[in-house]
Amino acid sequence: MAGEKNVGLVLLGFWVSPFVQRCRIALAEKGLPYEYVEEDLLGGKSDLLLRSNPVHKKIPVLLHDGRTIVESLIVLHYLDETFPDTRSLLPADPSERARARFWADYVDNKVHGCGARLYKEQQLQTGAEMVEILRTLEEELGDKEFFGGEHGFGFVDVALVPFTAWFESFHKYWGLSVADVAPTLAAWAARCMKRESVSKSLYSPEKVYDFIAGMRNYAGFE
Amino acid sequence: MAGEKNVGLVLLGFWVSPFVQRCRIALAEKGLPYEYVEEDLLGGKSDLLLRSNPVHKKIPVLLHDGRTIVESLIVLHYLDETFPDTRSLLPADPSERARARFWADYVDNKVHGCGARLYKEQQLQTGAEMVEILRTLEEELGDKEFFGGEHGFGFVDVALVPFTAWFESFHKYWGLSVADVAPTLAAWAARCMKRESVSKSLYSPEKVYDFIAGMRNYAGFE
Repeated sequence: MAGEKNVGLVLLGFWVSPFVQRCRIALAEKGLPYEYVEEDLLGGKSDLLLRSNPVHKKIPVLLHDGRTIVESLIVLHYLDETFPDTRSLLPADPSERARARFWADYVDNKVHGCGARLYKEQQLQTGAEMVEILRTLEEELGDKEFFGGEHGFGFVDVALVPFTAWFESFHKYWGLSVADVAPTLAAWAARCMKRESVSKSLYSPEKVYDFIAGMRNYAGFE
Repeated sequence: MAGEKNVGLVLLGFWVSPFVQRCRIALAEKGLPYEYVEEDLLGGKSDLLLRSNPVHKKIPVLLHDGRTIVESLIVLHYLDETFPDTRSLLPADPSERARARFWADYVDNKVHGCGARLYKEQQLQTGAEMVEILRTLEEELGDKEFFGGEHGFGFVDVALVPFTAWFESFHKYWGLSVADVAPTLAAWAARCMKRESVSKSLYSPEKVYDFIAGMRNYAGFE
C-alpha cells in the first residue's frame, strides 16, 4: 500500500485459511499496511513460522515489531487494542463485547468444527447439523444489517464471513443450499462481499471447493 | 458478603466445574459480592439456565442487571471491563494481553481437552500427552511467581488453577505425579492455594476424584 505508513506488521498465512482471511479483513478494515508471507503448509513450514508459534506451529501469525501474536481472534483483539485510532471491530459496551466474543467462539466451534468435516471425514454427513448452525446464526443476525448491529460490520462479521466462501461446497457435498435454508444469512453474505476488505481477502467458492476436493483426494477419501 | 455493596451479580454454576471455579476466583479477586446458584446438572437444568444460555445450555452463566454473560473466559473479560476499579486480571499491554489469551486458550484446548478424557473415555491413555502439556506450561511459567509475571496472579493463573484439583486424579488414573514431572508447576499450584480466592473456590482433590469415578461409573466404564 504505497504512501501508507509502515507500522511493521507481517502476517504469515495460507491463502484458503478462514483464520488468516479474518486477519486480512481486519487489517484492511483498519487501513493498516502489512507484509503478507504465504506459508507452504503442504510442502514444509518455514523456520520463521516454527520459531514464531512453537506451541501450535499454525498460521495465522502476526509479527509486529518483535512481538508475535497467534490465533485469529486474539489477533483481532490485538489490532483493536494496539491501534485504537483505527476502526474498532469490537463495540465499546462490555456486555456487547461479551456477546460478540460469544458468537465468534460459536463460529470457531460450530461453523468451523462442522465445516471441517468436509475434508476430515470419509463418510459425509447429511448437512443437517450445519443447517441448524446456520439457522442459529440467522436468528442472532435477525433484521440487523451486520452482526455488529449499530456498530456496523464488526468482530462477528469478520469471524464468520470467510466461511461464506464454503457455502458452495456445502451445496456440492451436502446438497445444502444456504439461500434456501438461511436466506437472511445468504443476503448478509452478499452485503459483506460488497466491502472491499472482504472481496479482496477471500477466494472464490470454486477455488475453495477445489481445495476441499484436493484435500479429500489427498486423504484417499474418493 | 455482608456490608458489601450489592452490584447485582448472580452466578449459575456447578460445584466441580473448573469453568465455574474460574468465575468464582475472579469475583473473589475483585472483591465483588454475588449470589451463587447451584445447578442440578445431572438431575435437570433450571428454566433460568435454559433461558439464559439457550444455545449451549451450559454453566457458568453470569447474570448482571438483566445482561447475560456466558463462557468463563468471556466472563473474566466482562468483569475486567465492567469493573475497571477492581484488580484487573489481564495486564495492560496489548501484546501481554494477547499472550495471556493464548495461554488461557491453551488451557481450554489442551489441559481440559486431555483431562476430560478421564471421564469421557473408557480406555484410559498413558498420560504421556498430559505430561507434555504440563511441561509446556512449566516452560511458559519459567521462574515467574505466577503466569501473570510482573502483573502478579492473573488471567492465565485463574484459567489454569482449577485444574490443579485434578492432579490427584492424574496420579490415580494415569500414575502421573505432577510433583515429579513438572515440579515448578506443582510449586506454583501450592502458591496459588495460599490465596483465599483460590482455596475457597476449589474442592479437594479427593472430591474431584470421587466425582470423576462417579462419572466413569455412570458411563458404565468400570
